[in-house]
Amino acid sequence: MGSTERSSAEGILFTDQYQLTMAQLYFRTGMHERPAQFDHFFRDYPNYGLHQSGYCINAGLDWLLEWMGQARFGEAEIEYLRWQTGGAGQRLFDDDFLAWLRDNGTFDGISLKAVPEGRVVHANVPLTIVQGPLAMAQILETALLNHLNYQTLIATKASRIREAGRGRMVLEFGLRRGPERGANAGTRAALIGGADFSSNVGVSRMLGLPPKGTHAHSMVQVFIALEASELDAFRAYADVFPDDCLLLVDTVDTLGSGIPNAIRVFEELRQKGHRPVGIRLDSGDLAYLSIRAARMLDQAGFPEVSIVLSNQIDELTLWQIITQIEVEAPQYGVEPDKLIRRLVYGVGTRLISSAGDSALDGVYKLVAVFDQGRWLPAIKISETPEKTPNPGHKRVWRLYDRRGRAIADLLGLEDEDPRELDPLVTHHPTQFGAERSFRHDEISQIEPLLMEVFREGRRVSEPPSLDDMRALRASDLDRLYPGVRRLMKPHVYHVSLTKKLWDYKQELIAAVKRKNSST
Amino acid sequence: MGSTERSSAEGILFTDQYQLTMAQLYFRTGMHERPAQFDHFFRDYPNYGLHQSGYCINAGLDWLLEWMGQARFGEAEIEYLRWQTGGAGQRLFDDDFLAWLRDNGTFDGISLKAVPEGRVVHANVPLTIVQGPLAMAQILETALLNHLNYQTLIATKASRIREAGRGRMVLEFGLRRGPERGANAGTRAALIGGADFSSNVGVSRMLGLPPKGTHAHSMVQVFIALEASELDAFRAYADVFPDDCLLLVDTVDTLGSGIPNAIRVFEELRQKGHRPVGIRLDSGDLAYLSIRAARMLDQAGFPEVSIVLSNQIDELTLWQIITQIEVEAPQYGVEPDKLIRRLVYGVGTRLISSAGDSALDGVYKLVAVFDQGRWLPAIKISETPEKTPNPGHKRVWRLYDRRGRAIADLLGLEDEDPRELDPLVTHHPTQFGAERSFRHDEISQIEPLLMEVFREGRRVSEPPSLDDMRALRASDLDRLYPGVRRLMKPHVYHVSLTKKLWDYKQELIAAVKRKNSST
Repeated sequence: MGSTERSSAEGILFTDQYQLTMAQLYFRTGMHERPAQFDHFFRDYPNYGLHQSGYCINAGLDWLLEWMGQARFGEAEIEYLRWQTGGAGQRLFDDDFLAWLRDNGTFDGISLKAVPEGRVVHANVPLTIVQGPLAMAQILETALLNHLNYQTLIATKASRIREAGRGRMVLEFGLRRGPERGANAGTRAALIGGADFSSNVGVSRMLGLPPKGTHAHSMVQVFIALEASELDAFRAYADVFPDDCLLLVDTVDTLGSGIPNAIRVFEELRQKGHRPVGIRLDSGDLAYLSIRAARMLDQAGFPEVSIVLSNQIDELTLWQIITQIEVEAPQYGVEPDKLIRRLVYGVGTRLISSAGDSALDGVYKLVAVFDQGRWLPAIKISETPEKTPNPGHKRVWRLYDRRGRAIADLLGLEDEDPRELDPLVTHHPTQFGAERSFRHDEISQIEPLLMEVFREGRRVSEPPSLDDMRALRASDLDRLYPGVRRLMKPHVYHVSLTKKLWDYKQELIAAVKRKNSST
Repeated sequence: MGSTERSSAEGILFTDQYQLTMAQLYFRTGMHERPAQFDHFFRDYPNYGLHQSGYCINAGLDWLLEWMGQARFGEAEIEYLRWQTGGAGQRLFDDDFLAWLRDNGTFDGISLKAVPEGRVVHANVPLTIVQGPLAMAQILETALLNHLNYQTLIATKASRIREAGRGRMVLEFGLRRGPERGANAGTRAALIGGADFSSNVGVSRMLGLPPKGTHAHSMVQVFIALEASELDAFRAYADVFPDDCLLLVDTVDTLGSGIPNAIRVFEELRQKGHRPVGIRLDSGDLAYLSIRAARMLDQAGFPEVSIVLSNQIDELTLWQIITQIEVEAPQYGVEPDKLIRRLVYGVGTRLISSAGDSALDGVYKLVAVFDQGRWLPAIKISETPEKTPNPGHKRVWRLYDRRGRAIADLLGLEDEDPRELDPLVTHHPTQFGAERSFRHDEISQIEPLLMEVFREGRRVSEPPSLDDMRALRASDLDRLYPGVRRLMKPHVYHVSLTKKLWDYKQELIAAVKRKNSST
């Protein structure tokens, strides 16, 4: 493997073969530069088996735009397509198409509207709307879905973990079990969705955060193998990092050796004027051990040092740990709330791999094609009504009730403005007759969700900072009803159509059915 | 985000912060260049909930070695470490350590033995043994686990899917739902483990395979939106790719429109002397539709064209599809075996994300440290006996019975040769008294599993070809008992210790316990 080939595999060739064969067909039939519109959305919230999410946190857009700005067909990529042969040994891609691709094979003609990263988003709502010449908009599909599906999946998991941990600090530790280089995107998404810091050094650097981490079991083992002790290892660590001393206490025996040794070293640090940071528990019954640890640390006069928990943590584990602490801590004279406030969660494998549901089903569907001065809607009728995408150019708004809580995402047509409708009638996307009607004074805000982010190959604005994205997340979560946020069997958030879009969709479905039955 | 930062995040900073803080501690205590040995192994086979694997397919090594050859601390990386501050605002990493790191921060001192990619591997067997200076061997941990865990996970899933599909052709289609750039590693692993081809253009190029794929629903939708028809779309496709015509038949109505239109186009192709390739079914009851499609294609005189199935396929779905075909096909006058032989499986999301178990729990454990001319064993005693790693320098052999089937992987000490032992006694790794004894004539082969692959920073041999790795996989699977290969509740393969290693481990555990109780 050459690294040139690798970087090319991460560039414009980071796509599926059928995008290229379709592009040649569009070229051959003269449709390749015809404007087209694709909607990106996901169909279902992650379902982790025992539990399911009621919302997602949008993520991945900035790295997608970065990729789009750089990916293009160069000589090496064209050469590879020229090399490909078909079933009869003939060339698969012709010179005229390849010449067009070499001159036009960039995303310079593409424009995007999108929901900003960090926002709460819902199933079947267009999150990204792509407009541009058909061939290149088609080729974009694979990379767009790849970038957005995975980061949204991980940001959502991180948000759930943060919620289950009652907002205590979450550290992302997943790189060792993450999906190769994709783990960097996972770390970024986790930091948008709910993690405060990460152990991942390179991504922390990219995002301007200090990476977190102190030591592993192996450090203690080295000392023991060389006939020194756990205490010697802890002392050495405290010596080198006196103001950042967080000790892993379960290498030998958590209660019998680890915590007492840590306390001894903390006392020595205190005498020298330093403030110890905490301990980490990485095995055993984390709830029970954290209670015992809190008690020992309190008694030694270290009520403020953190207790970091790690080892296969996810949202359900955290929920269980906190519930157990509430029941069990008082039996040891430890105040549950005080203990919970000193907890920090180190979350690795189950976050970076979205354990329980390891892929988001985001799709990219053609919804309109331009012809003779107007946009023609494209529709694909599925046997499952829920899978028939909403056709045409659309706008998306979020409706808030008088308490300021989000009650629905509303899809309408390009020329509509729900602020002008009173009462505002919202339709269930597939069930006939299932509609709700709101008077204007029942709605406190009607907020457009999609922003223009990319205009003909260029970003419209600077990438948002991590703080911006986190602020959006926090404010959106605050405005969700708790039923939608809960870990299990969440209340289903409403995604609705305006009356005009509903009617338009039904007319199109009827027209397609008439056409099919007449041929 | 600059692309420099991104490439640095994929270089030496693709690591966890605690590797760097430990490295500084080793430096400060003078242990940083002391030779150390780490074993990499996984603890459990993937468990997908309803089903579990009885083996894994090893993968990821070549891309790890590639990474190791390139990753190093340059000025930018050192600068970032210099910038980091600790809890009291002081610098976290000191100049003398950073100077050492700048001059020595490569993997030039590291050597690896490893099981070749493509081989069947088992839980708790060292798959990679790393030797080198403590600090850099420690820093390697994160990237090593990251590269090997994910690819082995995906290669294993691919192998299971291939087995469930009775060895029919498997196409990997997962890029759109894969974990960002990590999806490229997933594609590679799938191709080693069981997929024949992939839709991923860049990785197919790297591996010298033709990428596969023809068209999506969107192509048919474009024609329909422009007031043409599915038949027009198929004809256009056949025109552009007359010798590679594989048509997706479920955009409008599979049985009523898609298959009849495909047959019409196939007839036109045949008249012009071309050979149509096949159809693809992407929704609905894939077993039933494949039977109906086979019947229609047979009747039209196309008994040889392929039927590609796609849509959320994994090993259980395939098992169900094949079972259903065996029951249902005869009811439509279709011979099940003949139908199964023309099937091709397009497998995406559930392969690239290892649905059901999305991470492999590979670990990297210190097992020995060099001191005064000899290797001292390192041991970490876990409260769970299975989690206490086997200490010291080890060798690994695979034992085959007289039928040529693999019956156990055997771990022994460096100076042992099981070929010299008769009878050969193998111990259960944790249960006292659980042992088996083999006479030499019961064993047909004793095969060493680990090969030297990297010596002091350099590859020992050329990277294996994809064909080499696939041949190893096929031959290893042939030599597994079917009980170990089955999809659900597989027979547990034996991983055993020699008597000498068993005794050595027990002595060390006893010594550590004595030492702990005396302090």
